[in-house]
Amino acid sequence: MKVDGKPYRTIWVNGDGWSVEIIDQTRMPHRFETVTLKTVADAAHAIKAMLVRGAPLIGATAAYGVCLALREDDSDEAIDRARDLLIETRPTAVNLRWALDEMREALRNRPRGERLEAAYRRAAEICDEDVEICRSIGRHGLKLIQEIAAKKPAGEPVNILTHCNAGWLATVDWGTATAPMYMAFEDGIPVHVWADETRPRNQGASLTAWELGHHGVPHTVIADNVGGHLMQHGQVDLCIVGTDRTTASGDVCNKIGTYLKALAAHDNGVPFYVALPSPTIDWTVHDGVKEIPIEQRSGEEVSRMTGRTAAGAIETVTITPDGSPVANYAFDVTPRRYVTGLITERGVAEPSPEGLAALFPERVGRG
Amino acid sequence: MKVDGKPYRTIWVNGDGWSVEIIDQTRMPHRFETVTLKTVADAAHAIKAMLVRGAPLIGATAAYGVCLALREDDSDEAIDRARDLLIETRPTAVNLRWALDEMREALRNRPRGERLEAAYRRAAEICDEDVEICRSIGRHGLKLIQEIAAKKPAGEPVNILTHCNAGWLATVDWGTATAPMYMAFEDGIPVHVWADETRPRNQGASLTAWELGHHGVPHTVIADNVGGHLMQHGQVDLCIVGTDRTTASGDVCNKIGTYLKALAAHDNGVPFYVALPSPTIDWTVHDGVKEIPIEQRSGEEVSRMTGRTAAGAIETVTITPDGSPVANYAFDVTPRRYVTGLITERGVAEPSPEGLAALFPERVGRG
Repeated sequence: MKVDGKPYRTIWVNGDGWSVEIIDQTRMPHRFETVTLKTVADAAHAIKAMLVRGAPLIGATAAYGVCLALREDDSDEAIDRARDLLIETRPTAVNLRWALDEMREALRNRPRGERLEAAYRRAAEICDEDVEICRSIGRHGLKLIQEIAAKKPAGEPVNILTHCNAGWLATVDWGTATAPMYMAFEDGIPVHVWADETRPRNQGASLTAWELGHHGVPHTVIADNVGGHLMQHGQVDLCIVGTDRTTASGDVCNKIGTYLKALAAHDNGVPFYVALPSPTIDWTVHDGVKEIPIEQRSGEEVSRMTGRTAAGAIETVTITPDGSPVANYAFDVTPRRYVTGLITERGVAEPSPEGLAALFPERVGRG
Repeated sequence: MKVDGKPYRTIWVNGDGWSVEIIDQTRMPHRFETVTLKTVADAAHAIKAMLVRGAPLIGATAAYGVCLALREDDSDEAIDRARDLLIETRPTAVNLRWALDEMREALRNRPRGERLEAAYRRAAEICDEDVEICRSIGRHGLKLIQEIAAKKPAGEPVNILTHCNAGWLATVDWGTATAPMYMAFEDGIPVHVWADETRPRNQGASLTAWELGHHGVPHTVIADNVGGHLMQHGQVDLCIVGTDRTTASGDVCNKIGTYLKALAAHDNGVPFYVALPSPTIDWTVHDGVKEIPIEQRSGEEVSRMTGRTAAGAIETVTITPDGSPVANYAFDVTPRRYVTGLITERGVAEPSPEGLAALFPERVGRG
């Protein structure tokens, strides 16, 4: 997507043909800075310190991390060491493991002299494949937006609410939930996005608002509390959110607070869509509320807030009373009965075992 | 209620018999400081700059503001000037106008020499009456908590979720939503309160957590996004919130985000109660969502956050990207179908025209 008119991806190989450039997302939304990765240790640090985040981007960064390791040593031992180092950075990230498996496969049985080129080729493919998946999600979601736009008076914006950041910053390009929004915008449909702040980590207020704003998409930041009121008053035409994990039956595990928006959408007859690349479907899980364990993160994410002071410095302040305990559940599960449809790269699935099975027949019963 | 063992109200007359002491709530939760009001201008400033907030406390402060004015000049003209000055501080605060009317009534036809004493007497009554109303709400709400506690294994806490601050800091003492919690705590029932952060002004994280903590009530601060997840997992036994305005049919207008919690409570079979002094019932309004206009406040409440730096200074930081618009709706309306009961000073009313009419028969049809 564009940043003030210039097209970007979240990760790319520099003009030198080997070093890898990423956007330092820990500086956002106050600073737009890129960082050059020159070693596998640089790549591991970028993942661990969350300079990059979002499953697809983490996978892509790990893939290039293997490339950078190979530049120094292309032995089997070095490849194994790189894999161990990278996998430790975010042990629960499914996509990280997948990308490392893909890299291992690409290098299998290759003589040492050919490995480096093969690795860069596969890493580039992993990026391009992710872009293609997001583009397909965008095209399927675009139809939903077009249908709504066709029913509104000409020129009246289609109001879309989103939660957290399932944007291009979380992928290589386009994003998942945002792909339909960017495509509608490029298509000339007047869209306006309500960006939930997304406490406690504020990915909506800091990342979604930043990327929409710099691409030029009209949007408004709102507190997470506001969506229900907007839906009661006809100010939301549809919701599109991302997901970290979707069950085989269509339950959706996504950033904490997603469930509350789905309830409000249901109560007000607002369509609630979830955009997802099919690899995030967990075919082994059926009842999301019962089966998916919810990660609890540090209370400091709630009790402290980072922003820019009037003097321009980045400062962290404490916002809760000393001695007050804080709980920080990172995700919640939206039962499928509150989901209108799952926008995948193969089309929009009904959130049910049958709906998903119809789009992904090869996966049924395979766990 | 108590602050570290010492009983407090939010407003009181000092030992000198005339100056008025308040808690500066703008310094909370980081500092506990009181401020002495010596003139009507001091009182007006305290209301306007939100050193005091919450309808009952604003009314009490205005009443004492009239007393302070009378000390300097007890003419009819001076009383009118004091009234004009005070009413301008928060023009839409219904309770402010009510308290000023009460003071005018108390002074009517009195000779100038008797006015000052009559004013202090009426201001003290206004405070005591508010405490009595909150105490009655507490007693009626306590029964609901006792019933739930009786069904739980001995020693297991009753988990109560609340939103915003309808606590003693918003009233003269006890609070509305918190009164049942404090009474249950004093009664030896193990209670634990989930305090919603309540973006964007953070009254839950800063005020509710502070007052519960300093009184000794077990509590945990959570992001507004979390309540639905907790209810899905049986971690909330009941919700009690306050309200700014209740319709004659039982719809509840309260701090933005209340509606989302009510939806989650309904979806998970969790009782959702609203605590209210009956003067906040607006007998002229019937359909809350359609009829109640929702105030929009400055976007800076969303885009900026104030807290304490590691060095101990109070600092405000910007948390949204430059150029991203922000919307800030302050309240929402929870339709009565999602409310289990209205805890008033006369008992718990069913949220319906009939339910309210049964408790307040003298108001029916009087608008």
